[in-house]
Amino acid sequence: MKQNKYDEPGFFAKYSEMPRSVGGLDEAGEWPAFRELLPDLRGRRVLDLGCGFGWHCRYALQQGARMVTGADISEKMIERARATTDDPRIEYRLSAIEDIGFPPDEFDVVISSLALHYVERFDLVCREVHRCMAAGGVFVLSVEHPLFTARAAQQWCYGPEGERLHWPVDNYQQEGARHTRWMADDVIKYHRTVATYLNTLIESGFNITRVSEPAPSPEMLSRHPDWIDEDRRPMFLLMAAARAAMP
Amino acid sequence: MKQNKYDEPGFFAKYSEMPRSVGGLDEAGEWPAFRELLPDLRGRRVLDLGCGFGWHCRYALQQGARMVTGADISEKMIERARATTDDPRIEYRLSAIEDIGFPPDEFDVVISSLALHYVERFDLVCREVHRCMAAGGVFVLSVEHPLFTARAAQQWCYGPEGERLHWPVDNYQQEGARHTRWMADDVIKYHRTVATYLNTLIESGFNITRVSEPAPSPEMLSRHPDWIDEDRRPMFLLMAAARAAMP
Repeated sequence: MKQNKYDEPGFFAKYSEMPRSVGGLDEAGEWPAFRELLPDLRGRRVLDLGCGFGWHCRYALQQGARMVTGADISEKMIERARATTDDPRIEYRLSAIEDIGFPPDEFDVVISSLALHYVERFDLVCREVHRCMAAGGVFVLSVEHPLFTARAAQQWCYGPEGERLHWPVDNYQQEGARHTRWMADDVIKYHRTVATYLNTLIESGFNITRVSEPAPSPEMLSRHPDWIDEDRRPMFLLMAAARAAMP
Repeated sequence: MKQNKYDEPGFFAKYSEMPRSVGGLDEAGEWPAFRELLPDLRGRRVLDLGCGFGWHCRYALQQGARMVTGADISEKMIERARATTDDPRIEYRLSAIEDIGFPPDEFDVVISSLALHYVERFDLVCREVHRCMAAGGVFVLSVEHPLFTARAAQQWCYGPEGERLHWPVDNYQQEGARHTRWMADDVIKYHRTVATYLNTLIESGFNITRVSEPAPSPEMLSRHPDWIDEDRRPMFLLMAAARAAMP
């Protein structure tokens, strides 16, 4: 099922107030690691799946991308993204990630930032990305880490003084929907194991070129002292994969 | 440092009584998943790093391997392995995994079962495996899962009735030695993240071909009802990698 919370007014307003919605990529803890996985974007045709406000699209343009397409299921997000630029090299398209239907050889680089754990069929997305990607193309994606999505609660285990004792893991092997609370709303995420993410990419015709489970840098910790516990368990899983010749 | 607990009499006696030490591969929960990652062994030259009692070596021979070498740091393990067969196609060699020094192109398949989380320098092992492996070779390895090695305690979080509440994770990003208790003894294991295992293989010139975080099969659960909680968190990480042309 394709849930679209972002077009609900209350949810959108709350999302718009998040640090990363206001401050952009610099406020996203995993951004430096994500950026490191990106290939040289000069002259490339880039697709961003789940582009949100278009931060990554505009970054790609700054880096010299020839053509950038952002796709998102939320009309409000696409509207906001369109309002940020009139550069003719960017096109924002209203579409669920599962429904993108681009011709073959359309893109050199496909990125997706923290969107694919909302999608039930990761296998279909990978197949579609492979299909619309030129030979030698690169797929860079981030998701909430399987350690983070395993339990629907997505919370630390706290001690009597409110201190964070450890990160609890359970139901790891039970893949599927998790009804989570995010910004006081029901949000459906899909838990998959690390093995499933990687094997699905491989089976779809990609070579894994790099995996990252980033922790905040010292520089980030000085700006966000509240991220101090982020090295106790990985919150994000990032993968870079190259399109192999044949699936 | 190269710890060798197995040659201490008390430890060896206890290890020898473990189900997998008595019953062999069929008593190892991760064995069906490991076996699935193995290529066709017929006519291949196989190296087993940390061969223990030689169960995997003998399996390789049964599968038609042309030549099998088992290496282990423990004299007692190698002695026991040698006592199980006089097949001239098997050679057991006393050596720490870090010290194997085989000529290039010596092996087609290198395997390592639950040994490499005892080794401090996974990068050096990967480099050495790549060096002694023929083009088109395959490296299949299992380790204790990073979720499992992150905390030295390696224990469930228990409730007041002794029930298993969840699996606690902490210190995930702090790679390095863990002083664990195993069979009432101090055993040093090395924690590495999932990303480090995979990236080290890739940087050493391997393509990841499959990753597995196995849960026990229904058949296993019927024989081992006490494994019921093994689908709540992954205990093992298995990886298969193909030697790429150039590192």
